[in-house]
Amino acid sequence: MRPIDSGLIFDRFSIFRLHMKQVTSTLAVVLATAGFSFAQVQPNKQTPESSEIWEPVPPVVTPGVYSANTAGTTAPSDAVVLFDGKNADNWYANKGYAPTASTDPLQWPVQNGVLYSSKTSSARSKQEFGDMQLHLEFQTPSKVEGNGQGRGNSGVFLQGRYEVQVLDNYQNPTYVNGMVGSIYKQAIPLVNPSRKPGEWQSYDIIFIAPRFNKAGLMLEPAYVTVLLNGILVQNHVAVKGTTEYIGVPKVQAHGKGPIVLQDHGNPVGFRNIWVREL
Amino acid sequence: MRPIDSGLIFDRFSIFRLHMKQVTSTLAVVLATAGFSFAQVQPNKQTPESSEIWEPVPPVVTPGVYSANTAGTTAPSDAVVLFDGKNADNWYANKGYAPTASTDPLQWPVQNGVLYSSKTSSARSKQEFGDMQLHLEFQTPSKVEGNGQGRGNSGVFLQGRYEVQVLDNYQNPTYVNGMVGSIYKQAIPLVNPSRKPGEWQSYDIIFIAPRFNKAGLMLEPAYVTVLLNGILVQNHVAVKGTTEYIGVPKVQAHGKGPIVLQDHGNPVGFRNIWVREL
Amino acid sequence: MRPIDSGLIFDRFSIFRLHMKQVTSTLAVVLATAGFSFAQVQPNKQTPESSEIWEPVPPVVTPGVYSANTAGTTAPSDAVVLFDGKNADNWYANKGYAPTASTDPLQWPVQNGVLYSSKTSSARSKQEFGDMQLHLEFQTPSKVEGNGQGRGNSGVFLQGRYEVQVLDNYQNPTYVNGMVGSIYKQAIPLVNPSRKPGEWQSYDIIFIAPRFNKAGLMLEPAYVTVLLNGILVQNHVAVKGTTEYIGVPKVQAHGKGPIVLQDHGNPVGFRNIWVREL
Amino acid sequence: MRPIDSGLIFDRFSIFRLHMKQVTSTLAVVLATAGFSFAQVQPNKQTPESSEIWEPVPPVVTPGVYSANTAGTTAPSDAVVLFDGKNADNWYANKGYAPTASTDPLQWPVQNGVLYSSKTSSARSKQEFGDMQLHLEFQTPSKVEGNGQGRGNSGVFLQGRYEVQVLDNYQNPTYVNGMVGSIYKQAIPLVNPSRKPGEWQSYDIIFIAPRFNKAGLMLEPAYVTVLLNGILVQNHVAVKGTTEYIGVPKVQAHGKGPIVLQDHGNPVGFRNIWVREL
Repeated sequence: MRPIDSGLIFDRFSIFRLHMKQVTSTLAVVLATAGFSFAQVQPNKQTPESSEIWEPVPPVVTPGVYSANTAGTTAPSDAVVLFDGKNADNWYANKGYAPTASTDPLQWPVQNGVLYSSKTSSARSKQEFGDMQLHLEFQTPSKVEGNGQGRGNSGVFLQGRYEVQVLDNYQNPTYVNGMVGSIYKQAIPLVNPSRKPGEWQSYDIIFIAPRFNKAGLMLEPAYVTVLLNGILVQNHVAVKGTTEYIGVPKVQAHGKGPIVLQDHGNPVGFRNIWVREL
Repeated sequence: MRPIDSGLIFDRFSIFRLHMKQVTSTLAVVLATAGFSFAQVQPNKQTPESSEIWEPVPPVVTPGVYSANTAGTTAPSDAVVLFDGKNADNWYANKGYAPTASTDPLQWPVQNGVLYSSKTSSARSKQEFGDMQLHLEFQTPSKVEGNGQGRGNSGVFLQGRYEVQVLDNYQNPTYVNGMVGSIYKQAIPLVNPSRKPGEWQSYDIIFIAPRFNKAGLMLEPAYVTVLLNGILVQNHVAVKGTTEYIGVPKVQAHGKGPIVLQDHGNPVGFRNIWVREL
Repeated sequence: MRPIDSGLIFDRFSIFRLHMKQVTSTLAVVLATAGFSFAQVQPNKQTPESSEIWEPVPPVVTPGVYSANTAGTTAPSDAVVLFDGKNADNWYANKGYAPTASTDPLQWPVQNGVLYSSKTSSARSKQEFGDMQLHLEFQTPSKVEGNGQGRGNSGVFLQGRYEVQVLDNYQNPTYVNGMVGSIYKQAIPLVNPSRKPGEWQSYDIIFIAPRFNKAGLMLEPAYVTVLLNGILVQNHVAVKGTTEYIGVPKVQAHGKGPIVLQDHGNPVGFRNIWVREL
Repeated sequence: MRPIDSGLIFDRFSIFRLHMKQVTSTLAVVLATAGFSFAQVQPNKQTPESSEIWEPVPPVVTPGVYSANTAGTTAPSDAVVLFDGKNADNWYANKGYAPTASTDPLQWPVQNGVLYSSKTSSARSKQEFGDMQLHLEFQTPSKVEGNGQGRGNSGVFLQGRYEVQVLDNYQNPTYVNGMVGSIYKQAIPLVNPSRKPGEWQSYDIIFIAPRFNKAGLMLEPAYVTVLLNGILVQNHVAVKGTTEYIGVPKVQAHGKGPIVLQDHGNPVGFRNIWVREL
């Protein structure tokens, strides 16, 4: 698209229009003169400034702190804190995993700064989210019971639909698309970086919400990247639809959705749950 | 996340299937027998229907027809037709390439079903678009004049910001990130499938609009795929910002935008211009 | 990372430019003057040439020609032609759809420049491919028989594993993840642009092969974009594993693979089959 | 592609061939019989097992431990440790930032478990990498000197070509595509989560290497995701070519490459440098 003959003068005007677009028209003559003189100087000299960009300016965020296994990683300054060790006020009780309209208060116990899943219900965040970075820490029971999917099972449903599996997979084989770190029955994790039962583990999840078109079809899938205990287990994985226990993913157009923490009958502990809206 | 109650038997069967693979052939009879007995419960229920999805139903579209070089490819039934050979009514005159607010009628001549660029202005579509499939055909002058960027130069600005270059590149070298098929100064085309001057050429462009966050930063770039004369020249290429003549791409949050056809001083012909909103 | 020595002055100028935008017009004269004086040093050196790239040079390709419905689109100069209307010499007979080691000659009849599927076998290309652009044209029987998956059914297996469905879907509903234009049981097409039975239809497919790691896990999925009759039906869709009739996709590390055209008991015609290795 | 008339029996065989492929041929009759009986039972019942996958099995990895700010995050069991606090033995001295062939030992001092950049050279890892997860921690000088790009400047060059910027950006503005967390002059970070000068900061980087074709063109760009201090600053960003100080990215076909830590004249400290090959 590069201008040819008449381009030189025109371009100088363009640069000025960009830089000085608020300058009044009375200055135009001065600028045009200046612009003209600019063109005399080394027109093909490359400079570092040519490739600098000065806006938009990224917002300042104060990062959280990470400490020993006993305390975990606190929330950064721009995060929505869903659980900070004190109470379950940011959650509703939700029967089953699919989000309901219930506004009953969550009955999960909080003990020593830990939120424990209980058979009373699953937990649904009051706030709903689109694109996000989610951090949470979980602890499967130190007393090992059951095996396969029956050991330390829970799950984190993004937008109430897309489950990142929680499971005690330490020396406990199961189907690989249902392991901890899997997108349940959609994506096998790259590795199994499980810590031992009773130890705290962390999830750092980057989620880009799907884009649906007018016909309700998925123009862009959700994309998710997951680090488990700081180790990459899913890299920019396309989530093709809902994570189903039976059958293949289903496509359902939707907007923002809640975080749902699953109760699966095993008392799994959670702490430091926070979301950064991207 | 699977339910627990009946899960135990299921899991054992699954583990059985896994282990089956490693057992020696001397055990095969026993296993086959076991397999048969298990078969009464589960594996035969792996059915084709489990993985069928019946909705949402994709809309029916009647595709256009493509004929010889003389007529090109007509619009499908769900397309917005921007030029069908009759008049320039769907376009405004636009001074320069950056979209203006002008609603002046476009002065480009229409001759024999072809819309020719002219020095009166660039052309800006009245309608604005987001995600889209764009088809158009162009014809650089059969009488070759100029060279490099000065020969048969025009351009298609998606959302008024992201230029897919139009140029007569038949035996006419230029900088490769400014060739026909390039995302101007951002992405080199994979090949140069130029037809000869005066022959009709086609662009099929798939464009996914960028996603910006609250801070005005680009959370997801625009992605573009381009076929030139049916040949892939850009595959899912991230467009990092505006396509600048000088300097690097700039990030500017925006919504829908028009198609702009550039006038660059060379009389380039256009026909069969249509957009499918995705 | 820029060098430090001379940087101080440059930076100050840059900041100056940033701030310029917010000053009032009463200061414009002063600024313009300042701009002029600075101009001796830097901003005019923002040149178009700074952002030109001259290599690597994309190879020249002569595109094919497309003509009326009766002839279709011929191969470009850099394509591997798998069927040009004359014979089936580039294909093996393959029992079933999964690639075998058979080197038996394909028994499909060639009539009037068309290759018709027959119950003798499926067709497996002799050559194997990785990243590619694939073009082919197909024709389901003009005499309509059967319904759902039983009408004009065939399929194009990329790398012998990933099926793009072929089906007569003209006024013939079936499960949407098994429609023409679907990635079989993995991705619903965006629209249904089927032509009538007996009419020629075209597939243009862009395929990026999956990337597996040392553990045999899929680090990057296959990505596929599909145009059916010139209409986008799949856009950069992640193919998560093999396209299974029963069950979910399976992950199998592999290298290049053949094109397999399925015989499904319906005599589907093919022509203009060519592949460009990307 | 679903079989129609003869498909049912054939499919049952297929399932058995998959599950029992190592069973000897003497058992085939038994299996076929079993397979036939399977088909009699509830062919359209959906089961959880239909969507389980049991292989490939992700490797077990023991994650590192993270402790207070004083110690950082140690390497997981499958990582290549480039610096563990003891010596610079895994690095060469490299004049400038572009990788050289030099095998001179790195002269950067190691003090109290920290590797400090020095004006002697940049640091180039002896080992070269492709797809990877990279972790490192850095510390800009607690005594603040200079400003803009002159304060705490260093950089991490992935494959010796693609720079993730290191800079003291705490209350220190610069051009946004050159901030800490930027892909230098290619991608602005989403936020600025800088810690104060002298505090330890962490980079967790996921890098997918670019894919070049035979013509030397970039078929797939490098993609990079970056967390700075646990905060997402780059999400699956396409790196379009080399990160240039002057001009736009350049496309150069290449294989694996080293990590280069830049010396920029400021004594920046590094620790816990490890790479997991993906």
